[in-house]
Amino acid sequence: MSTVTVDLGERSYPIIIDTDIISRTEIYRDHIAGRNVLVVCDDNTRQHYLQPLLACLGEFNTATVCLPAGEANKNLDTVNLIFDELLKQNFDRNCTLIALGGGVVGDICGFAAAAYQRGVAFIQVPTTLLAQVDSSVGGKTGVNHALGKNMIGAFHQPQCVIADMDTLQTLPVREFKAGLAEVIKYGLIDDVDFFSWIKSELPQLLALERHSLAEAVRRSCENKARIVSADEREQGQRALLNLGHTFGHAIETATGYGVWLHGEAIAAGMCMAARFSASHGYMESTKVREIEAIFSEVGLPVQPPQNMTAKQCYDLMRRDKKVRDDVLTLVLMKDIGESFLSKGHEHNRLLSFLQECFSKT
Amino acid sequence: MSTVTVDLGERSYPIIIDTDIISRTEIYRDHIAGRNVLVVCDDNTRQHYLQPLLACLGEFNTATVCLPAGEANKNLDTVNLIFDELLKQNFDRNCTLIALGGGVVGDICGFAAAAYQRGVAFIQVPTTLLAQVDSSVGGKTGVNHALGKNMIGAFHQPQCVIADMDTLQTLPVREFKAGLAEVIKYGLIDDVDFFSWIKSELPQLLALERHSLAEAVRRSCENKARIVSADEREQGQRALLNLGHTFGHAIETATGYGVWLHGEAIAAGMCMAARFSASHGYMESTKVREIEAIFSEVGLPVQPPQNMTAKQCYDLMRRDKKVRDDVLTLVLMKDIGESFLSKGHEHNRLLSFLQECFSKT
Repeated sequence: MSTVTVDLGERSYPIIIDTDIISRTEIYRDHIAGRNVLVVCDDNTRQHYLQPLLACLGEFNTATVCLPAGEANKNLDTVNLIFDELLKQNFDRNCTLIALGGGVVGDICGFAAAAYQRGVAFIQVPTTLLAQVDSSVGGKTGVNHALGKNMIGAFHQPQCVIADMDTLQTLPVREFKAGLAEVIKYGLIDDVDFFSWIKSELPQLLALERHSLAEAVRRSCENKARIVSADEREQGQRALLNLGHTFGHAIETATGYGVWLHGEAIAAGMCMAARFSASHGYMESTKVREIEAIFSEVGLPVQPPQNMTAKQCYDLMRRDKKVRDDVLTLVLMKDIGESFLSKGHEHNRLLSFLQECFSKT
Repeated sequence: MSTVTVDLGERSYPIIIDTDIISRTEIYRDHIAGRNVLVVCDDNTRQHYLQPLLACLGEFNTATVCLPAGEANKNLDTVNLIFDELLKQNFDRNCTLIALGGGVVGDICGFAAAAYQRGVAFIQVPTTLLAQVDSSVGGKTGVNHALGKNMIGAFHQPQCVIADMDTLQTLPVREFKAGLAEVIKYGLIDDVDFFSWIKSELPQLLALERHSLAEAVRRSCENKARIVSADEREQGQRALLNLGHTFGHAIETATGYGVWLHGEAIAAGMCMAARFSASHGYMESTKVREIEAIFSEVGLPVQPPQNMTAKQCYDLMRRDKKVRDDVLTLVLMKDIGESFLSKGHEHNRLLSFLQECFSKT
C-alpha cells in the first residue's frame, strides 16, 4: 500500500493506493466521524462495488443514492437528488458522504457535501483512472451549466481518497485510455522523468498490470498533491493543472457533454496547446510531434472534432474560468516537462490559430 | 456614518451604516474588483432602488437579475436564474454580485456568489431591518429545501455591507416589526444593556426615527460581528445566534415558507425557548413574562401558530442543523442577556413541553 499526503494544514488528507482495498472497513473507519453514511454511486459502480462497500460499512447507518451515469447528468438537478435523500434520511451535519465512482460522481457528490448544511465530510472512492489521478484529488467539486463546464462549484477537500487498482480492471478501455491523458499531463507539466517512464511503461499500463498502474497513480497523485498544496485555491501555479483544458472544455461543451470523454478532449487540447506554443516559438516542433505521438500510441485524439468551428471554439474559450476581465490565460509549454502560464493572449492571433486548426480536421 | 468591522483576518469587511448611502459611487468603488457587476434585486427593491443604484455604478459594466420576492422562492431554481444571467453575460471570476434586498435576496445572491466558478465577490445592500442586523452579516448564505430551511448553502463573506436607514422608511410595517425580533435577540443573548435600551427606545424605533434606527443597527451588528469573529464557522458560540431559531424554523417549515415571516417565527421561538428554560428551572418566570411583554409591545407573536401540532414541531426540530447524531442542542437562557448552549435534550421532555405549548394555542 502506498499513501500520498495532500498537505493542506488542518485540511490535509491521505490518498491510499493499493489493490483490494475498496471494501476494507478499517480504512473507512478512520475517516468517518458520525454514524450516518450516504454512499453516492452511479449505474456502473452500483453493479460492481456497491454491495461489497455497504457490507464493509455494516457498523454504520448507511443509505444510498444512485445517480444517472455520465457527464450529461452533472448538473444541479442531480445534486438535488442527493439533498433529497440526505433530508429524507434526516442526516445531520455530522454525516459522511462517500463518492463511489468516476469523476462525475466525485464532482457531484463533493459539491453536495460542500453545500449540504454548509458543508459535511466526504470520502472519494474513485473507480476510474481519470478520477484516481485527477478529479478526486485537490478539492475541486462542482457541476456543469448548459452554458459552461464546471461553472457551479466549491473548493471542498475530502477526508481521504481510496484508490483501488482492481477497479481499473473492469473499466471500459475507452475510459481507461481517457484517464491516461491526465497521467501524461503530469509529465508534460513539469516532470519529464515521469513522461519518459510513461513512454517506456506504456505496454504494461495498457495491459492493466497492477504494479504499473499503482506506480502511475502514485506519481500522478504526488505531482498533483504538490501543486495543490502550494496553491489550494488556484491563485497561481495550480492553473498549470489546466494544461489542455481551455481547449478541451471548449470541445466538450461544443460536442455536448459526454460525447467526447473529458480525457479525450484534453488530449486533443494538450496537442492544440503544444501546437499553439510552437506557433509562438516557445517550443520546438519536434517536441510537438513527440507529444502527439504518445497520445496517438495510446489511441487518443490529437485533433479537435470535425463538427465544430474555430469561431465556436473561440467563443467557448472566452467563457473559460481562467478568463479575467476578458484577458485569457493559457497554459503553454516551452518543453516537455516545462509548462507555464501565458497571460493576455491577443484575440486575433488565437482566432487565426484556431482557424488553421479547424481547417485541418 | 458609522462603520462596524467584522474581523475575520484576510476576509474582514466593514458594515457601513448611515442614511442616503445606497447610491454613493465611492462606497461601492472601494469594494468592486473587476469591471463586471451583477445587481440581484427582487420585485420590491427593483421598484425603489434599482435605478439609483445602477446610475451610481455607471463606470462599471452592469447587468441585473430580478428574483421573485419572498421566502417561498429561496430555492435552487432561483439560484439558477443568477447563474443563467452570469453566463449569458460571460461574467468571469473577477465579477462582483450586489445583493439589493432583504434576507432572501442576500441569502440567494450570496450562495450564487459562493458557487459561481467556485466563488466570486459580492456586496450586501440589505434593505430590510432583518437583513441589516442579521442575515447580511456573517457570511451564512444558502437556500431552502422542501424538507428543511437553509439546508443548502455555504459560508461566504461579502466584501462589505451597506446599510442605508432610508430603506427602512418604505418597508411594510409587518416586515419592520419582524426585523425588531432579531434586534431584541441580541439583547437576550448577552447584552442586557442593549435590551434595556431597546425597551426605552421602542417608541422612537416604531416611529422609524433614523437616529434610533442607526443606533439599533449599529449595536446589533457590533454584537453579531463580535460573535462571528470569534467563531466564523459555528463550531461553538456562534450557535447562540440561533436563539429561538430551532423552534422558529420548525414554525416556518410547518406553516410553509413565507406565511409567517422569519422574524415572527423566531419571536414566538424565543418565547418558547424562554418558557422551556423556565420549565427546566434555568430562568425565573418573571423574566419569561418580561420577554413576552416586549415582543407583544412590538406586535410580534409569543405563541406558535394554531394550525400546527406538537408532533410536527418535534419532528421538524429533530431535523435542525444543530442536531448531531440525534443529539439536539438548544439555545436556552438563564437570564435576559445570559443565554447558553444546552446539549443533549431528552426527547420525551421536549415532546411533552411542546404538547403543553400547543394545547394552549
